[in-house]
Amino acid sequence: MLNNIPGRQFNLNVSHWFNTEKEHQISDFEGKVVVIYVFQMLCPGCISHGLPLAKNIQQSFRADDVQVIGLHSVFEHHDVMTPKALQAFIHEYRLTFPVAVDKPSQHSHLPETMKAYQFGGTPTILVIDQHGRLRLNHFGTINELQLGAIIGSLLEENEPLQRNENNSIEDTSQSGCDENGCSI
Amino acid sequence: MLNNIPGRQFNLNVSHWFNTEKEHQISDFEGKVVVIYVFQMLCPGCISHGLPLAKNIQQSFRADDVQVIGLHSVFEHHDVMTPKALQAFIHEYRLTFPVAVDKPSQHSHLPETMKAYQFGGTPTILVIDQHGRLRLNHFGTINELQLGAIIGSLLEENEPLQRNENNSIEDTSQSGCDENGCSI
Amino acid sequence: MLNNIPGRQFNLNVSHWFNTEKEHQISDFEGKVVVIYVFQMLCPGCISHGLPLAKNIQQSFRADDVQVIGLHSVFEHHDVMTPKALQAFIHEYRLTFPVAVDKPSQHSHLPETMKAYQFGGTPTILVIDQHGRLRLNHFGTINELQLGAIIGSLLEENEPLQRNENNSIEDTSQSGCDENGCSI
Amino acid sequence: MLNNIPGRQFNLNVSHWFNTEKEHQISDFEGKVVVIYVFQMLCPGCISHGLPLAKNIQQSFRADDVQVIGLHSVFEHHDVMTPKALQAFIHEYRLTFPVAVDKPSQHSHLPETMKAYQFGGTPTILVIDQHGRLRLNHFGTINELQLGAIIGSLLEENEPLQRNENNSIEDTSQSGCDENGCSI
Repeated sequence: MLNNIPGRQFNLNVSHWFNTEKEHQISDFEGKVVVIYVFQMLCPGCISHGLPLAKNIQQSFRADDVQVIGLHSVFEHHDVMTPKALQAFIHEYRLTFPVAVDKPSQHSHLPETMKAYQFGGTPTILVIDQHGRLRLNHFGTINELQLGAIIGSLLEENEPLQRNENNSIEDTSQSGCDENGCSI
Repeated sequence: MLNNIPGRQFNLNVSHWFNTEKEHQISDFEGKVVVIYVFQMLCPGCISHGLPLAKNIQQSFRADDVQVIGLHSVFEHHDVMTPKALQAFIHEYRLTFPVAVDKPSQHSHLPETMKAYQFGGTPTILVIDQHGRLRLNHFGTINELQLGAIIGSLLEENEPLQRNENNSIEDTSQSGCDENGCSI
Repeated sequence: MLNNIPGRQFNLNVSHWFNTEKEHQISDFEGKVVVIYVFQMLCPGCISHGLPLAKNIQQSFRADDVQVIGLHSVFEHHDVMTPKALQAFIHEYRLTFPVAVDKPSQHSHLPETMKAYQFGGTPTILVIDQHGRLRLNHFGTINELQLGAIIGSLLEENEPLQRNENNSIEDTSQSGCDENGCSI
Repeated sequence: MLNNIPGRQFNLNVSHWFNTEKEHQISDFEGKVVVIYVFQMLCPGCISHGLPLAKNIQQSFRADDVQVIGLHSVFEHHDVMTPKALQAFIHEYRLTFPVAVDKPSQHSHLPETMKAYQFGGTPTILVIDQHGRLRLNHFGTINELQLGAIIGSLLEENEPLQRNENNSIEDTSQSGCDENGCSI
């Protein structure tokens, strides 16, 4: 599932950033696992499952452990998927993580980062390890258990997870059965 | 999320097994992460989300890495949630992983394993590490990304994941956009 | 979709009722459309989509217009899908509409009502018109728009729908966009 | 649910049509029930539930009975939700029903049809009866059973539904239980 030889450093080639005041480099996130959600605003699968997944990753892990970044890699309908249209999209979909515009190419309909790392299309999920190396480059739908396992193993890889004394993930106080389950 | 001091060995106290010819001990699965799905056949939340999750875990990981076990911990309606009824349930729901009946208690409405480890109710998900120690005891719904991360970190803990040269999780060959995404 | 010649009166052949003090006849519901949800408590499809549909019908129409009835038509695992087990099921799944036990046959594994009207299996949805005639006998999943249209046309058939002055179905007070939509 | 006094004729005020060679008037659909799905291409709720509903209506009823029309009523982000962007959207989302652009107003951010009929926002569902009169004007999510009932009652209103001899909605040939149900 993961790259055996995680040698290659990953770099973004970006023309514009939203939701951040800084022009980020991947090296800014040294020590974190970085998950990059590659999308196009008019791609149906990006909206229906890629976007909820990106939001879910942002909510499921501590900000100190995992950084989510959106990458708008436009390879079709360039005239209508402009940065200005993307800005309206980010507003309407309430995205709060940093979103980068993949740099348009002079010579290709594919933008620069997409071309450099040979993304299969959109949505694509990239996972970058704590040392900035590309470890997963996955096009299409993805199993959340498997993606969670990849993130969990990368977090464990160098520095074991911080653990709580408590072993419950969330508090659930119920009595009797309801649609979620039956409590004692 | 996980137990900081994973000292306690986990043991099942079982009166009957289905889908296996062997009376299992947790020690049979040394070297694997064991996920135990604790349920009751008449518990709505067990059917609607616990069961699909248990099947998904079974399908998402290699059988050499992760072992799924069902544990029928009956604490109500004992007269109708019998082993015979459970057998019909296992048949109708097409369960293929081993399913154990938590041993009924002489002195309590709670069965023995449930009582010993203080499960909060059903469904409960237990995660046992490669050395047979209980690391997660979670009652109610659970986030798949977080559960995947726990399993991934436990797999990495002692023995890093086997990795493929290839970094794609599944093959997706598409051209143009469809409901899953847009390929180049 | 509907029977062209809706001649046949429908009758239940029942051994036991739950959630009602009366031994109902279909003629008790003269003037209402009656929807009968035929199920078995250990039938996976009955739980996953038949049951939510039955509850949805109960909530979507006025009690004066549409009556929902459950019919437990057991044709397998007779020894464990007993009235006592059904009672626990009704309690756990919070069913509030009347539920009838289809009368077991002396000579067949099929119960009497199921045999008489040749249900295809479970779940089956039956729709009875305002005069007690069987108009739909549908086995398996069903499209809610189409089922709604059948119920709507039967309600209109004899006595046009009571209409409100107001044409909104539910109040929605929002400002700006949220996940449900964008208000002015 | 429906207008008691269905007096008002409905008219579209449109600047451009897609997926049709004709500049339609509602009167073109005399004898059919017309369902109009009012949306904006950057409205999240329009994409997540309005659009699947519009496609479902198109597939659930005969083209001779029910006509689905999309109406792009832009009241925000006018500079990026242009007809050209809408054309790309229609292509990517594989819409095959006629889509009209609600005519922009000179004096308001609300387009003309939206303003004339006081739509609450997007998505809105309009239902027009067989004589061109507006019968439902509903903003936000909508219950499919209830919407189906409205369509069914309007189809029945003037001209009873064509009925088949057969009372099954779709063929389902199964043996034993599967996730959809249990057949005899």
